[in-house]
Amino acid sequence: MSWIVEEIGFDPNRITTNGNKFMLGNGAMGYRGTLEEFKKEQLPACTLAGLYDKVGDQWREPINAPNGLFTQLILNGEILSPLTSRYDSHRVALNIRDATYHRDTAFVVGDNRIEVRTRRFLSMEHLDLILMKVEFRCSQDCEITVRTGIDGDVWDINGPHLQEYELSAGDGLIGLSCITQELKKSVSVAEGITLVGAAEEVLIQDSLSMLREIQIKCFAGETYGFTKYVAVGFGDQREQVSKTVQSRVREAMRDRYETLLHRHALHWERKWELSDVEIEGDDDAQFALRYSIYQLHIIAPTESEKVSIPARGLSGQVYKGAVFWDTEMFMLPFFLYSQPKIARNLVMYRVHTLDGARRKAAEYGYRGAYYAWESQDTGDDACTLFNITDVFTNRPMRTYFRDKQVHISADAAYGIWQYYEFTGDDSVLLEGGAEVLLECARFFYSYSYYKEEKNRYEILDVTGPDEYHERVNNNAFTNELVRTTLEIAFKAMAVLESKYPEAYASLMEKLDFSEDLGKLSSMLGQLYTPQPDPATLVIEQFDGYSKLEDVDLRTLKSRIMDKNEYLGGGNGLATTTQILKQADVVLMLHLFKNRFSQEVKKANWEYYEPRTEHGSSLSSCVYALVAADIGNSDWAYPYFMRTATIDLTGDSKQYVGTLYIGGTHPAANGGAWMAAVLGFAGLHLREGKVLFQPSLPEHWQSIAFPIQIRGQQFRVNVTATEVVILSDNRNKLQQTFQVGTEERTIEPGGRSSFPNEGKRRGDGLAG
Amino acid sequence: MSWIVEEIGFDPNRITTNGNKFMLGNGAMGYRGTLEEFKKEQLPACTLAGLYDKVGDQWREPINAPNGLFTQLILNGEILSPLTSRYDSHRVALNIRDATYHRDTAFVVGDNRIEVRTRRFLSMEHLDLILMKVEFRCSQDCEITVRTGIDGDVWDINGPHLQEYELSAGDGLIGLSCITQELKKSVSVAEGITLVGAAEEVLIQDSLSMLREIQIKCFAGETYGFTKYVAVGFGDQREQVSKTVQSRVREAMRDRYETLLHRHALHWERKWELSDVEIEGDDDAQFALRYSIYQLHIIAPTESEKVSIPARGLSGQVYKGAVFWDTEMFMLPFFLYSQPKIARNLVMYRVHTLDGARRKAAEYGYRGAYYAWESQDTGDDACTLFNITDVFTNRPMRTYFRDKQVHISADAAYGIWQYYEFTGDDSVLLEGGAEVLLECARFFYSYSYYKEEKNRYEILDVTGPDEYHERVNNNAFTNELVRTTLEIAFKAMAVLESKYPEAYASLMEKLDFSEDLGKLSSMLGQLYTPQPDPATLVIEQFDGYSKLEDVDLRTLKSRIMDKNEYLGGGNGLATTTQILKQADVVLMLHLFKNRFSQEVKKANWEYYEPRTEHGSSLSSCVYALVAADIGNSDWAYPYFMRTATIDLTGDSKQYVGTLYIGGTHPAANGGAWMAAVLGFAGLHLREGKVLFQPSLPEHWQSIAFPIQIRGQQFRVNVTATEVVILSDNRNKLQQTFQVGTEERTIEPGGRSSFPNEGKRRGDGLAG
Repeated sequence: MSWIVEEIGFDPNRITTNGNKFMLGNGAMGYRGTLEEFKKEQLPACTLAGLYDKVGDQWREPINAPNGLFTQLILNGEILSPLTSRYDSHRVALNIRDATYHRDTAFVVGDNRIEVRTRRFLSMEHLDLILMKVEFRCSQDCEITVRTGIDGDVWDINGPHLQEYELSAGDGLIGLSCITQELKKSVSVAEGITLVGAAEEVLIQDSLSMLREIQIKCFAGETYGFTKYVAVGFGDQREQVSKTVQSRVREAMRDRYETLLHRHALHWERKWELSDVEIEGDDDAQFALRYSIYQLHIIAPTESEKVSIPARGLSGQVYKGAVFWDTEMFMLPFFLYSQPKIARNLVMYRVHTLDGARRKAAEYGYRGAYYAWESQDTGDDACTLFNITDVFTNRPMRTYFRDKQVHISADAAYGIWQYYEFTGDDSVLLEGGAEVLLECARFFYSYSYYKEEKNRYEILDVTGPDEYHERVNNNAFTNELVRTTLEIAFKAMAVLESKYPEAYASLMEKLDFSEDLGKLSSMLGQLYTPQPDPATLVIEQFDGYSKLEDVDLRTLKSRIMDKNEYLGGGNGLATTTQILKQADVVLMLHLFKNRFSQEVKKANWEYYEPRTEHGSSLSSCVYALVAADIGNSDWAYPYFMRTATIDLTGDSKQYVGTLYIGGTHPAANGGAWMAAVLGFAGLHLREGKVLFQPSLPEHWQSIAFPIQIRGQQFRVNVTATEVVILSDNRNKLQQTFQVGTEERTIEPGGRSSFPNEGKRRGDGLAG
Repeated sequence: MSWIVEEIGFDPNRITTNGNKFMLGNGAMGYRGTLEEFKKEQLPACTLAGLYDKVGDQWREPINAPNGLFTQLILNGEILSPLTSRYDSHRVALNIRDATYHRDTAFVVGDNRIEVRTRRFLSMEHLDLILMKVEFRCSQDCEITVRTGIDGDVWDINGPHLQEYELSAGDGLIGLSCITQELKKSVSVAEGITLVGAAEEVLIQDSLSMLREIQIKCFAGETYGFTKYVAVGFGDQREQVSKTVQSRVREAMRDRYETLLHRHALHWERKWELSDVEIEGDDDAQFALRYSIYQLHIIAPTESEKVSIPARGLSGQVYKGAVFWDTEMFMLPFFLYSQPKIARNLVMYRVHTLDGARRKAAEYGYRGAYYAWESQDTGDDACTLFNITDVFTNRPMRTYFRDKQVHISADAAYGIWQYYEFTGDDSVLLEGGAEVLLECARFFYSYSYYKEEKNRYEILDVTGPDEYHERVNNNAFTNELVRTTLEIAFKAMAVLESKYPEAYASLMEKLDFSEDLGKLSSMLGQLYTPQPDPATLVIEQFDGYSKLEDVDLRTLKSRIMDKNEYLGGGNGLATTTQILKQADVVLMLHLFKNRFSQEVKKANWEYYEPRTEHGSSLSSCVYALVAADIGNSDWAYPYFMRTATIDLTGDSKQYVGTLYIGGTHPAANGGAWMAAVLGFAGLHLREGKVLFQPSLPEHWQSIAFPIQIRGQQFRVNVTATEVVILSDNRNKLQQTFQVGTEERTIEPGGRSSFPNEGKRRGDGLAG
């Protein structure tokens, strides 16, 4: 099976898409898959995780660092670029196994054929390091001018974010340092090169860039080239940061490219060992799923617990580089099963942003923690009140994403508890996780209302996952997650109280929580959560949903007058109908699969599926998951494939008006993994027991993958007839597995083959 | 002082406006001030009170009866009409003292000058009777063809409502009877004429009309003419209704025009005795106020308690002929002080529509009575979910008038209790009024939520009077009215329990109310009502209002792109700002003037006044009332005049797109009376005591008017220096009055002159 994504030929219309598709990253930086010679018009970006800036009244968004890979080859005054030059062949490729980017172009200038070949990677060992090797060969003797260095004229959406540029050169290194507008952070880039052969170099600098210009006399058929060592850093002290990146470059130049690449590749080998999913019988699915996993690896914070994964990964400034619920709901499961340490970083991010969540709750008059709908470094909400432009009037449209999507606090709590359940790692609770859980529960108490007439607490005026219906009452998804948050808070308190009584006492005192205990308990006992209708088994998405116009999707779409018109908001076409943006009730049925019968899941899937517009990339995988859960892998498969290929095809929306909104889709990437492993293989953790209820697509011979549960490593292979589980030799604990109805405990190093009873369509369904 | 409204000359652009301005009515029927020769294109209408019809999916609206006054004079084949004929002079006039309509036109055909003169009235004695006298005189000998009869081709907005036309003729009478589409009610019109002199008559009928054609040989200078006697009726039995209208016509023809006019005028004399307000020193104000009172008289249900007053009176089918809160809040006070029997009819209408209100409450999942926002005959809500067309997309726009303006139930309850307090008439409580009060209180309990954290009941998700801000929480006006409803319910129960224990017991049992008592009492004790901010004294209109964009009205209006765009609704320009459609908090300060200090009233008037768009004709009078209350009659006066002249100038909006929305404005008419008598004269009833706190406009020498309190008749004259009160000789009870700080009790037949201490501007205000 191939591990290579490639594209032959050059299509200027695909520059933006390919910037996402061929992206590199190491969790600390993302580097878009653009060509070395590109300037900001082609949207290159070296996006830094966790550093944000705000200019004037514009959106706060992440920083794109100066581009240290910028390189142009010039022959007879002509800059070689497929945008403007003749070329014989052009190919870019991404090896997702070792996360290297490959570019090969053969330019033609007169009778001279110039083959250019570059290789680059973002070191997975040194997260501030980018390396690139450039080679070229001409068919005729000529003189090539290499212009390479640091291009500080960066692409910004709401910039410019960088100012006070300082350029430097010395000891063979060049450097560029600048200051962000808002927080006055220093961003520094240093670059050194090693050149094959001797050449004359001059430095060219303007206000924003520091470049070397090197004349190379080329003899026909000979290969020339050089290697670029680039380090990128940021921090409070300009000099300090500059020094750090310079010494990193020097160190890298001592280590040399091949060594660094080798070490980088070892990291990636380990990543794949822990996470690769092998599918037999479906090459397309295999490739798309691996590519999805690659996308998750390149944006995962391996070393920092102060950043999480933004909704567009590190592919640029889109969506303000903000972290949404996507992380907990769509990405976390992959990391939990494969790299719990990264999962820990992701959930600890919520601990570090707790104060921001407290400020947001207070701003709206509530107690506890109301997490940001769009979270950045501080946890204050980056989401604005007017998010969308009305296409008919060009006016900003009031939306209630920020104000009313209260489920975000439940999502954060749910994520923390998931981590705890998977790992048994108490430390996350002790280091602030429990505090988050309690503050989220307190927020929901503070947000709730009591309906005396019905003797129940209700959650009013919220927006659920289906954003086309804003400000609804008793959204089934939200209420169920609120209930879960309260349950989790009590469970966490029980853990603390029994195992760490002092920590428990001190937390109770710190939060002055004793009075809340009784309130939360009474709320938990009487919280209303919408239940299946006895006749139809359908769970109403929110109060009054069933009274909305029950129009089919085709009819709704026929009413659209402008292809960019927003279907939600004040007057959106979907708002007065039952058409939903994305899985809502169905997502709840996935999250709480044990709380609902197969009949209920089936009834709701069938009800909501034709009414779902899938206006979010978070929708398809959920329909795949629940379809697999109810034994309909043929319903699930197209949704799985749609999810898994989203960043390969680049078919998603790239622009709204002149605003670029494209980028990668980590939630869909995570959703693809979920659909395959949690859906088709039917993996599920329940009260410490690992369950499999497989429902493979018929043409799949097998799916195999590693999982880690509470520190123990296992390997799973699911075929149509059996589920084989191998416990790693190095494991220390036994683990109970259940496949279908059969339950067994496997000792460390043991192996067990369970019969795969399969899941017949409609399995367990009445009627 | 003149009692005549007149217009000289003919302006085709004013046909529609003048249809409203010169309207006749007797509470059972309205007849628009259109010319006799007009066909439906000019919007003549004989609108019937209390009979509604619905065609297909269109709006339910009142019936316009076939036009029994239709009359054309034809000379040499030319129909005489100022629309198409030459004329020398044209004048229409309305005598508001006796409610007669006058029309005088001198047509010119060749050398012949034809003077036409008509007089008409809707009998205030026989509410089904319309009479018209037609006279004409030619300057040359000629033959005039008179075409007169019943034109059944009526103007309809969402019709046609009438079908199965049956035409008849016999014994000199012609008749037209037809059937409504929805309820299959019979509508019948009969007409008889008495002709001066002999003439030849033939009957002309088509499918919709029954006309006489009469040839009259005219000698120059001689006056010819005829009188039309028209009766209009409706009911279940076609034959029965036809017989009734025929005998009414015969009877009227026996009584003759002059006698009937005389009796009609006596009724009007009595009306003016009971209600005329005399202003010295301001002829414009005098005339406008009298005209406003005239408008109230012609639409008041004198005999039926099953109809109330629609928002556009009886001026056509606009606003579905529906009864809004306008009646209780803006018209009822006039009737309470002048004709309590009519006030009783108005409040009893809410008793008769209680079941509709119960159905609406149940439809939305509540107990008790949720009155229709737009109420017709049954009390079911005629208001639709989509009320407005988006000018940018031509799509229907979802509005929440029907769903969320819960204050309507409080308005209904408030009206009933106002009637009871003014009259001491227990019968209204015993005949269903108390039941309404309890059911409204129960509805609010059922609607409320308890906020445990704040130990209070809240009223969530409502729309207050300011319809530009839909679905808000804790609207100050609404919450205060809800509290009042609960108080009223308890007061009514106390009256019943002490005076009519059996009725009380039976009502409690009928409503199964005992369990609600404790709930309502606890709600009353802990209901949240927004209070003045301690620093600014401003009462926030609803939760979060103060956080909205604080833009001035001019700026807001500069953002308007289409003059017909709606400022409220989903994306309306005002919704995200502090701009309000109409008095909201300020109306509350008027209704509960004793609950708030003068300082609070002043602070709120000054805060909200510049933020009010006055997009409703219900707004200006409220600003006039509260301005007068705080002693600023110069602030109040322009608002008073704007209110009092609305149907004279016809300056209000007449069309939205092709939809006619014009008509008369009874709420503004009532508001003009309120501003003059309750505002400038400062009349106020508090716990059985009559108070005056006058604040006359400086150029007014006096204002004088009759009032009736608990069956006793008084006459009041307010000047700058004194307030003279006369108790009628026929009174049986003494009555306590307070003017300024002085309180006296006046015996039947007594007279007292109080010094008018006046109200200095800022009277009693701190700072």
